[in-house]
Amino acid sequence: MNRVHNFCAGPCTLPLTVLEEVQAEFLDFRDAGMSLIEMSHRSPEYDDVHERALAAFREVFEVPESFEILFLQGGATLLFSLVPMNLLGEGQTAGYVRSGAWGKGAARDAAFHGDVYLAWDGEPRGFTRMPRQGELDLRDGSRYLHVTSNETIEGIRMAAFPAVDVPLVADMSSDYVSRPIPWDRFDLVYGGTQKNLGPAGLAVVVVRKDALVEQELGSYLRFVTHAEKRSLMNTPPMFAIYVMGKVLAWIREQGGVRAMEERAHRRSELVYRAIEESDGFYRSPVEPADRSLMNVVFRTPSNDLDAAFLKGAESERLVNLKGHRSVGGMRASIYNAMPDESVEALVEHMRGFAEANA
Amino acid sequence: MNRVHNFCAGPCTLPLTVLEEVQAEFLDFRDAGMSLIEMSHRSPEYDDVHERALAAFREVFEVPESFEILFLQGGATLLFSLVPMNLLGEGQTAGYVRSGAWGKGAARDAAFHGDVYLAWDGEPRGFTRMPRQGELDLRDGSRYLHVTSNETIEGIRMAAFPAVDVPLVADMSSDYVSRPIPWDRFDLVYGGTQKNLGPAGLAVVVVRKDALVEQELGSYLRFVTHAEKRSLMNTPPMFAIYVMGKVLAWIREQGGVRAMEERAHRRSELVYRAIEESDGFYRSPVEPADRSLMNVVFRTPSNDLDAAFLKGAESERLVNLKGHRSVGGMRASIYNAMPDESVEALVEHMRGFAEANA
Repeated sequence: MNRVHNFCAGPCTLPLTVLEEVQAEFLDFRDAGMSLIEMSHRSPEYDDVHERALAAFREVFEVPESFEILFLQGGATLLFSLVPMNLLGEGQTAGYVRSGAWGKGAARDAAFHGDVYLAWDGEPRGFTRMPRQGELDLRDGSRYLHVTSNETIEGIRMAAFPAVDVPLVADMSSDYVSRPIPWDRFDLVYGGTQKNLGPAGLAVVVVRKDALVEQELGSYLRFVTHAEKRSLMNTPPMFAIYVMGKVLAWIREQGGVRAMEERAHRRSELVYRAIEESDGFYRSPVEPADRSLMNVVFRTPSNDLDAAFLKGAESERLVNLKGHRSVGGMRASIYNAMPDESVEALVEHMRGFAEANA
Repeated sequence: MNRVHNFCAGPCTLPLTVLEEVQAEFLDFRDAGMSLIEMSHRSPEYDDVHERALAAFREVFEVPESFEILFLQGGATLLFSLVPMNLLGEGQTAGYVRSGAWGKGAARDAAFHGDVYLAWDGEPRGFTRMPRQGELDLRDGSRYLHVTSNETIEGIRMAAFPAVDVPLVADMSSDYVSRPIPWDRFDLVYGGTQKNLGPAGLAVVVVRKDALVEQELGSYLRFVTHAEKRSLMNTPPMFAIYVMGKVLAWIREQGGVRAMEERAHRRSELVYRAIEESDGFYRSPVEPADRSLMNVVFRTPSNDLDAAFLKGAESERLVNLKGHRSVGGMRASIYNAMPDESVEALVEHMRGFAEANA
């Protein structure tokens, strides 16, 4: 097989060794005479998969025992609703940072289910940077401040989490388990797994046990129920959990979340350097301090050259480099499982294309 | 490989040919140089998978064009909340049939999100039968009547859907796409796919277009949004949709939902006949008219013999026959993809065990 260099913003590249293991085990899981996807979620075989995935997530992401880990469905988008439903009590309010397309979505959905307000809005600046500490407009008595740690579409990230007096809640979908978290400042982090951790169809919530409050909600909407049932209240997305468990084991072998962070710095830096050393041929709209380590956005001098860049890239098997339609240009998404050689091949294409077209 | 006869109540047996195809395609989907689980949900390859799955579901289940088909996550359990949230307007009410563990769950969760009432309760009779038409206590002006077409745990099914003046809503998780539906009586049917249709992690809603109402809800909770976006508002559970598409193609080859219904009658009848012909050795608590075609529950004369039956069955590779802990005894779940020879092997074991122990 001739694998491509897949720079998709998500779902994206997973470790080849994981894919090969999944394929080898697919028809007959652990000699049970059936596939994992035919198995009861109450079986000892699946229970072992589930427990190992929970334990690996805790170990690799360095999650303290004071937090619960929940395996849910519906993606971060369902959690845009469930977070305020579960965390906000009667008369409580929360601040939202509108830092890009995802922060916008979180604030929009939360407004249906809680009394929330805008603590900062990056739209007037075209979402090209994250807020500075002093810019946050936090109201007294806020239950939490919601942030998006990395904005996938605009290619910006919160390099440091705000030091504020209220607990933080973060949507980390596009930089999940790629950086260590100062847990003492957080009540909850959440994210879909389909970028850094596995297939689509699974979202993981890490929530402080003290923050779990009984709410008058249907059972699937209630975090307390999922925590009590170890995310086995109803049939979980077993295949996605199984694959994520293998990706987490792979991350552990690489050295855990700190190794992922080091890789992310090193590899995104290669692309940012290619932008900087192009003498203005490539431009990134993002302020340097807020550059994403996961999603590098850049442009050539014209739309025609952008199109030629993408066409040339495809001929070298560098795929899914087109920027989001709302932003244009190029976007290289470099998640945990992206091989170094893919980034090197991209940088080589960038240098060659700039030389030929400058 | 030595495949077992897997009578699990769900997830359960899928067609071996489907599993083999998935395995063969797993590393390099359609020569794209990547796995399907690494692919953008906006890619042409996945879009084709998605559209084919939608079209196959419509064709195989004979869904009229006046209904939308939605691919969601969170299982039927999330839908216990979303159905009243989406269908009930201000001041509207709905009746719920409490016919077993799942009907109970649907009624319990709906009460958090709408003004609902009990139209019938099977608990005083130990959930051994479905309501008769005349027993339904329907209030004037009800928006819908919620039923559970098949109760997985108790092994009972609604042989005919009630003919009432209000639209029906049915949770069909455990007999989905195994019987044709009188669509004119329904506003909505829903179910998880992990029994009759594919892996866990996907639920399908079939909703009358006229019944879709804008509601003040976060985006994932709103059926209207999923309908407008062809279930691609956010990243869908791509792998589960892909596998379901293959199972639906397999069902189509077998002759569609009517062939599945015929199979279900024929195969469950084999087991019920073994019960009847055992001269009282095997007993089923279920009233004959309400016997499930999917989940056949039965007992031997004692708990010790139940245990011996299950042990002997396992030695013949007949697995997952233990009844739900709340009911005890045995349960043979015979979903769409169960091979005939598995049912024949079960019946043979039942006859032999009864002869040896009567």
